[in-house]
Amino acid sequence: MIIHPCYSLETWCIRENTLDLDVLAQSESIFALANGHLGLRGNLDEGEPYGLPGTYLNGLHELRPLPHAEAAYGYPESGQTMINVTNGKLMRLLVDDEPFDVRYGRLESHERALDLRAGTLTRDVRWVSPAGQSAHIRSTRLVSFTQRAVAAICYEVEAIGERARVVVQSELVANEPLPMPGSDPRVAAALSSPLVSDDHGTRGRTAVELAHHTAVSGLRMAAAMDHVVDGPDLTDVDAESDPDIGRVTVTTVLEPGQRLRIVKFLAYGWSSLRSRQALRDQVVAALTAARQTGWDGLLTEQRQYLDAFWDHASVEVEGDPEIEQATRFALFHILQAGARAEGRAIPAKGLTGSGYDGHAFWDSESFVLPVLTYTFPAAAADALRWRHSILPVARQRAATLGFKGAAFPWRTIAGEECSGYWPAGTAAFHVNADIADAVVRYVDATGDEDFERDVGHDILVETARLWRSLGHHDRDGSFRIPGVTGPDEYSALADDNVYTNLMAQQNLQAAAAAAERHSAQAEALGVDAVEIMAWREAAEAMYVPYDEVLGVHPQSAGFTRHEVWDFDSVRPDQYPLFLHFPYFDIYRKQVIKQADLVLAMHLRPDAFTDEQKARNFAYYEGITVRDSSLSAATQAVLAAEIGHLELAYDYLAESSLIDLQDLHHNTGGGLHLAALAGGWSALVAGFGGFRAQAGRLTFAPRLPSDITRFVFHLWYRQRRLRVAATHAEATYTVLAGEPIELTHHGDALLVGLEPVSRPIPEPIPRADPTQPPGRAPASRQSVGSTPPE
Amino acid sequence: MIIHPCYSLETWCIRENTLDLDVLAQSESIFALANGHLGLRGNLDEGEPYGLPGTYLNGLHELRPLPHAEAAYGYPESGQTMINVTNGKLMRLLVDDEPFDVRYGRLESHERALDLRAGTLTRDVRWVSPAGQSAHIRSTRLVSFTQRAVAAICYEVEAIGERARVVVQSELVANEPLPMPGSDPRVAAALSSPLVSDDHGTRGRTAVELAHHTAVSGLRMAAAMDHVVDGPDLTDVDAESDPDIGRVTVTTVLEPGQRLRIVKFLAYGWSSLRSRQALRDQVVAALTAARQTGWDGLLTEQRQYLDAFWDHASVEVEGDPEIEQATRFALFHILQAGARAEGRAIPAKGLTGSGYDGHAFWDSESFVLPVLTYTFPAAAADALRWRHSILPVARQRAATLGFKGAAFPWRTIAGEECSGYWPAGTAAFHVNADIADAVVRYVDATGDEDFERDVGHDILVETARLWRSLGHHDRDGSFRIPGVTGPDEYSALADDNVYTNLMAQQNLQAAAAAAERHSAQAEALGVDAVEIMAWREAAEAMYVPYDEVLGVHPQSAGFTRHEVWDFDSVRPDQYPLFLHFPYFDIYRKQVIKQADLVLAMHLRPDAFTDEQKARNFAYYEGITVRDSSLSAATQAVLAAEIGHLELAYDYLAESSLIDLQDLHHNTGGGLHLAALAGGWSALVAGFGGFRAQAGRLTFAPRLPSDITRFVFHLWYRQRRLRVAATHAEATYTVLAGEPIELTHHGDALLVGLEPVSRPIPEPIPRADPTQPPGRAPASRQSVGSTPPE
Repeated sequence: MIIHPCYSLETWCIRENTLDLDVLAQSESIFALANGHLGLRGNLDEGEPYGLPGTYLNGLHELRPLPHAEAAYGYPESGQTMINVTNGKLMRLLVDDEPFDVRYGRLESHERALDLRAGTLTRDVRWVSPAGQSAHIRSTRLVSFTQRAVAAICYEVEAIGERARVVVQSELVANEPLPMPGSDPRVAAALSSPLVSDDHGTRGRTAVELAHHTAVSGLRMAAAMDHVVDGPDLTDVDAESDPDIGRVTVTTVLEPGQRLRIVKFLAYGWSSLRSRQALRDQVVAALTAARQTGWDGLLTEQRQYLDAFWDHASVEVEGDPEIEQATRFALFHILQAGARAEGRAIPAKGLTGSGYDGHAFWDSESFVLPVLTYTFPAAAADALRWRHSILPVARQRAATLGFKGAAFPWRTIAGEECSGYWPAGTAAFHVNADIADAVVRYVDATGDEDFERDVGHDILVETARLWRSLGHHDRDGSFRIPGVTGPDEYSALADDNVYTNLMAQQNLQAAAAAAERHSAQAEALGVDAVEIMAWREAAEAMYVPYDEVLGVHPQSAGFTRHEVWDFDSVRPDQYPLFLHFPYFDIYRKQVIKQADLVLAMHLRPDAFTDEQKARNFAYYEGITVRDSSLSAATQAVLAAEIGHLELAYDYLAESSLIDLQDLHHNTGGGLHLAALAGGWSALVAGFGGFRAQAGRLTFAPRLPSDITRFVFHLWYRQRRLRVAATHAEATYTVLAGEPIELTHHGDALLVGLEPVSRPIPEPIPRADPTQPPGRAPASRQSVGSTPPE
Repeated sequence: MIIHPCYSLETWCIRENTLDLDVLAQSESIFALANGHLGLRGNLDEGEPYGLPGTYLNGLHELRPLPHAEAAYGYPESGQTMINVTNGKLMRLLVDDEPFDVRYGRLESHERALDLRAGTLTRDVRWVSPAGQSAHIRSTRLVSFTQRAVAAICYEVEAIGERARVVVQSELVANEPLPMPGSDPRVAAALSSPLVSDDHGTRGRTAVELAHHTAVSGLRMAAAMDHVVDGPDLTDVDAESDPDIGRVTVTTVLEPGQRLRIVKFLAYGWSSLRSRQALRDQVVAALTAARQTGWDGLLTEQRQYLDAFWDHASVEVEGDPEIEQATRFALFHILQAGARAEGRAIPAKGLTGSGYDGHAFWDSESFVLPVLTYTFPAAAADALRWRHSILPVARQRAATLGFKGAAFPWRTIAGEECSGYWPAGTAAFHVNADIADAVVRYVDATGDEDFERDVGHDILVETARLWRSLGHHDRDGSFRIPGVTGPDEYSALADDNVYTNLMAQQNLQAAAAAAERHSAQAEALGVDAVEIMAWREAAEAMYVPYDEVLGVHPQSAGFTRHEVWDFDSVRPDQYPLFLHFPYFDIYRKQVIKQADLVLAMHLRPDAFTDEQKARNFAYYEGITVRDSSLSAATQAVLAAEIGHLELAYDYLAESSLIDLQDLHHNTGGGLHLAALAGGWSALVAGFGGFRAQAGRLTFAPRLPSDITRFVFHLWYRQRRLRVAATHAEATYTVLAGEPIELTHHGDALLVGLEPVSRPIPEPIPRADPTQPPGRAPASRQSVGSTPPE
């Protein structure tokens, strides 16, 4: 955990003023740049020291064996792992033959800054070499949003005080050594040197290309670089290439105050289909275009792209600048993960690290896509197009498992199931309803009928088929879905998980409606009226267990009759529980890793009365330990809805600050995109009370005491909507587009370009819920409060 | 499956008249010789061809990695595997420089016979070499019951027709190459050459010793051989040794009709503690003793030992000689597995093959020990002493899992949990109650108070502690045990498995009683009155679910509300289901791999009314597919009790003939000891109606139409009891010991040395139960009926 004030509080910037090597890996994740296609971790230009070197191309993966001590039918035997591709970030510097390395000599200053509006990572270093030579090194790095294959670095060295001989080696390096987790020699063998050289070469004195393929998955990639060098007259430039190394060396002598400036253009590409030559040509073309655009041109395009994004997505949080900064940081990284993914998944960690093997999970649809849907809907559509593209694999998986329709994988890169533990993987079929939910949400938010017809329909139909075959009408006619795992990974293989059943119910209804709206598509999939009726009957008869004695919904049938976990006997160092207790015991007791029933109350608000929500929330608060980063945000949303505003505030902070404060101790492996997205939801759905279903927008803003004013923007059906709230009132404005009817705390309003304000009612007073001992969230109130003026 | 009539029907012998290489592996299992300590598969003397070479020392194992695609807390990371030790069976023969190999030349005759009273495997071969030289080869092999470290072979070669130069190489070979299953290179590395040479040497011209240790587990073993050679005057004998090969070569020239006879004495030993030299001395001492006893002496001892066994254990089945033979075959192999195990486990396959890695499971206590308890109780006591010896490991495992008391492993050799799939391994906690049940049964059958005090008490107490901490009193006071896996492996992690709860109930009660009887032992374990009361309260409040609507016990809570497996859509080649359908779907539907609730009705007959038994049996018959070899016998027992006598007969045959007819297609990996034992139970507990609880013996004999008379013997509290039944009446006799009161079909009888006969009442007529389509057992009636005379 980053316990010192690592990053300064600035509105549009994450700035680090000193370099702390203990948290280098974390900072590399936080300073990662990506555009959804290409990702560069915030590694130091000179390559070393590093926490985790990382350059990623979305979708490019290697296969590795998935070993099972006892194999069984349907287990995936091959896993997909995102690999660290050719590193083009490297700019190695020698000053008078001393290599620039922050571990040697003396750092007079070291500053890095991620500019959320410029879309750049800048670095400014004043270094004195062990031999006493001073240099001022500045670099600016970007991964282009507008030219998706392209990254660029502007690298400047200035001699201070004395004349200096300077050598800069700008490199492309494939198969760099990595810290290797785990002990399986076969996994290490597959991943320690994943790229096989196809070709390499130089063009002129400034450009180098390297082409490789992955040994087992057989995917081709190419990386190329070119340079514009601006230095004193005697500056030499030369290029060389090896199978795994491309190098352009710039040599010069700088008088004091004189500066060497190198702009490095990088282009990447990969393909499973295109030939070696086609791929190289594609990369060279991208490189040529980038060079033609030029450094300043790339910077300008980048800022314009981001200006447009922030216009639609900006959030203001007066009274808590830390949360405001964190929310913008979150939005920026969500954009970086999804902007140009274009037919590829949005992995759990985006392209910021190799955590979770680079896999995409349900997090994408349930946490990340809601943000994109209302701020940058084109990216949400793209992510769902990726799901559509893997429908053939998902159909095959359903068939393998013996079910109808499509079964999307629990975790994957290319579509195939990569979960090595089925009770918390394949059995978590809710991922299918979550994808359907994202389709429904996107279509509702955009009215994009073409998308529904061409993409959404098939997803809805095939997942509805899955649910129909996963469940059955019991002897009383109720539709039951037994033996599945819900979102909470501290239970598994339970009957009638409320979340799953409610989400499946919506899935079945949405499929029926979509199939009726798009009859040609439905016919193409063989859907007939009988099948549609079967979906509706299953949805209507969906069984939702309820514990009449306790007056709460059990997470799954029988859950509330299980023994409650003995929280009193758990030591603080025994969290997360799954590292210290067997799943066997965790599964059979009442203990919740992450919001499950509570998430159902967020996503299916219509299925619960207000009193049920309050009782359920209080009940589940008492047994939820938040060992997953996917919990706090949802707890924030429901806490806010029920009126526990300070508790909601605490959970908001836990979710939003997860990476800037490394609250889960693993930010070094990549950012927690879903939790970051959850922070936005905690604000917008929690303190904004925002819900949207079937064209109906509802809001119920209420702020915790520290937040004095809160503004957010939403895209909704060709409208740019602005919501501003203080403790006293909320103001709604349609900034662009037609007027819209919405609901404010239950009252209908028609809102157009003219702001409409309404007072905010007091919440119903309720007893504060309690968490398991030691598991209450850190109190935000004292931390975040601004001093009285 | 062995589809041809492979073995001739003889009362006390399993005889094979021709050699069929297609079923060589199966015959090696069937002809395996063992004494519980040392096991030799029935490999051909000359070593090749083989199905699976096998020489085993009970308990000697190597460790291998247990890989997990996604590891979690409490998973065992190291597995134990029984290894193929130094092969001393080898007698390679050259006739005029042609190696004797059944694949070359011409076999004029080839007969092998396992003599169940002599305890020998004999072989008689007439072979014509490719060059036309005829030879008559006879071998007799035994593994001594009386000298547990010793095996011996009498090998004879006779020249037929022409003079022949004969060379016999008698060998000890370590690290013979094996067919290697699986693809994990680490496993192959660990097991392909498991023995590291410590030492080797010759003694004189006839004896060789080899000493090795296992590389990872570090266990030492030694094997030695000595020879008595009887041949023509010019016979040469010489010995040589290498690290992995010991060889005594006998060279001679035989005139037609002349014979070379070699008696080979083998001795084996292993130890985790003793020094290399101590172990070698031990083996040499055993070898010396064997040589002093001599071949004839060993044969005599062997027959005396078996005569005594058969006196107590013999079963007669008039009208079905095949079942009679199979039952004797089963008893013989059960004896071979347990006779001299002496502090080691009885593995699922005994020492007849490397199937299941040589692990012991609950099969031992629940299927094999009942047979030994009533026929050879000393061996049952020894097997339970092994459980007692691993109590420290089991206590540690319980602590690791967060429970009190001891958690015995699901599968193991040395005591540590080796299950690589916890939902069907560690979660199957019923193994603990099964062990306790075996203790209760043994103590009841023998009245062995010393055993109860020194061995049984601790096992009962520590398993009771486990149950008390595994379960909890719910809000209504009921004691529930959630999230466990019962015997049926087609369900997992279910709440309140009836079998588990009833067996745990008995376990808790037995521990309370034992602790009160043995207060010093109880005190030593810290048991006090409060703890005993807690066990009794849990037992009394034990929750047993019941489905009032269907009038049957659900296997576990909620089971009968699950969807019934769609048996109609399963093709015959899709059994066993677990090879063709995912556990996910199997677990959540009503489909039974093996008797679970039905087994509860056998082992806890007091917990069910007769009508419940009949309804439950009919219900579970309809959904039981018998994909486990552990099912048919229990179904036979209950079918017989309820009066479905012909169905019981079918199941009896399926269990008894499992290996002689290779019904599960995997006899090649070793015999199914538990199923073989189950065949005995199907007769004795099924057609004999034998039950024993708390000193009360009950019988309810009833025979299927084909069996005209059935006799079995039991040991019970220092009595030798004989039960004989025809269709008309049953006759009880105490052959030795005091008179005893017993129950015949509900009527109390006092039986002493004088036979007492009683008529057999008709069963209550009931509708025939049905099995899933295609899963009815093969009908025995036509097959087994003797032709009318």
